Amino acid sequence: MAFRYPNGKKYSPLAKDKKKKPLPVSAKDYANRGMSLEEDINATNEYYLEMNIAVIHKKPTPVQIVHVDYPSRSAAKITEAYFKQASTTDYNGLYQGRYIDFEAKETRNKTSFPMRNIHDHQALHMKRIIAQGGVAFLLVRFTLLEEVYFFEARHFLDWYDNSEARKSIPKSAFEENGYLVPQSYQARVDYLQIIDSHYS
Amino acid sequence: MAFRYPNGKKYSPLAKDKKKKPLPVSAKDYANRGMSLEEDINATNEYYLEMNIAVIHKKPTPVQIVHVDYPSRSAAKITEAYFKQASTTDYNGLYQGRYIDFEAKETRNKTSFPMRNIHDHQALHMKRIIAQGGVAFLLVRFTLLEEVYFFEARHFLDWYDNSEARKSIPKSAFEENGYLVPQSYQARVDYLQIIDSHYS
Repeated sequence: MAFRYPNGKKYSPLAKDKKKKPLPVSAKDYANRGMSLEEDINATNEYYLEMNIAVIHKKPTPVQIVHVDYPSRSAAKITEAYFKQASTTDYNGLYQGRYIDFEAKETRNKTSFPMRNIHDHQALHMKRIIAQGGVAFLLVRFTLLEEVYFFEARHFLDWYDNSEARKSIPKSAFEENGYLVPQSYQARVDYLQIIDSHYS
Repeated sequence: MAFRYPNGKKYSPLAKDKKKKPLPVSAKDYANRGMSLEEDINATNEYYLEMNIAVIHKKPTPVQIVHVDYPSRSAAKITEAYFKQASTTDYNGLYQGRYIDFEAKETRNKTSFPMRNIHDHQALHMKRIIAQGGVAFLLVRFTLLEEVYFFEARHFLDWYDNSEARKSIPKSAFEENGYLVPQSYQARVDYLQIIDSHYS
């Protein structure tokens, strides 16, 4: 399947190896290749979608569009726009009747997760999701340790609401209250396994 | 309660009558003022959110960002970007444990709804949502008639999948299988009332 960007450019990551058969790639290889957490989650969500396991998408980056050019009859071109702060988390969707909502963050810190990574609107959003009966959580990758934790929003909010002094959550909290997310070839960050085990 | 649009403009429909007690405003008045369906739904969702009734948001417009300028240390400025086709519906969220998912469309046609308004990705998305146990529907405003219908995705998909010849859904189908959405001052398109009545 070939992706095309709206500018008509073909996206072809394997262009150089066109004639070679793609080799199986392990999750470790992915980590080594420096795939971002976002890329891994997007690939996982794509897998969930194709296999009819769940319908979970990343929301588009919020952008304030100021000016659009319409050169001739071709596609509209945005020539001035600015990034806006998101008022919600980045990912949401549906899994077996459950509303799923999460934010994904990476840190190169080995001993703690800096809370400035999550802003106030997002914390408020998580509270609202919990109040309405949704499944809200964070996926936090400790990049240098190659570990991804599923950390329920209620635990995050405990730290967030009661940590005037602290500005980060120690890694031990993830080990004690979080769940290490299994990684596999097809579901590189297989977070639904955590929901299967702990929300039934 | 004051609404603010993302451009910072305050929304104040009663500005001229500030000293008077606000009068009841009929849905007709709003329609006459020419508010778009999107504006009305956004205001409704804002009301649901503030009153802790539901957490439902419009997804940001998907944009493919090609070039960003970083003039000095000020905000990043996107100088080249293109609109992308959405792979899902525009609105989703959570209401009392239920996953809610819908697309909103207006038509000036008085007798039918042109199906070209919904593209293939969105129809496929609706099928997936139904399969996972979500509440999927369309909100269709017949602008000139000042009527908004809640039309379940399963009915839309019946027409969509079985209408090689037809390119539109007759208004009578909305009257027979859809629900007329009540409009009020605070919830201008009060679609959750339909869910309360028909999904319990």
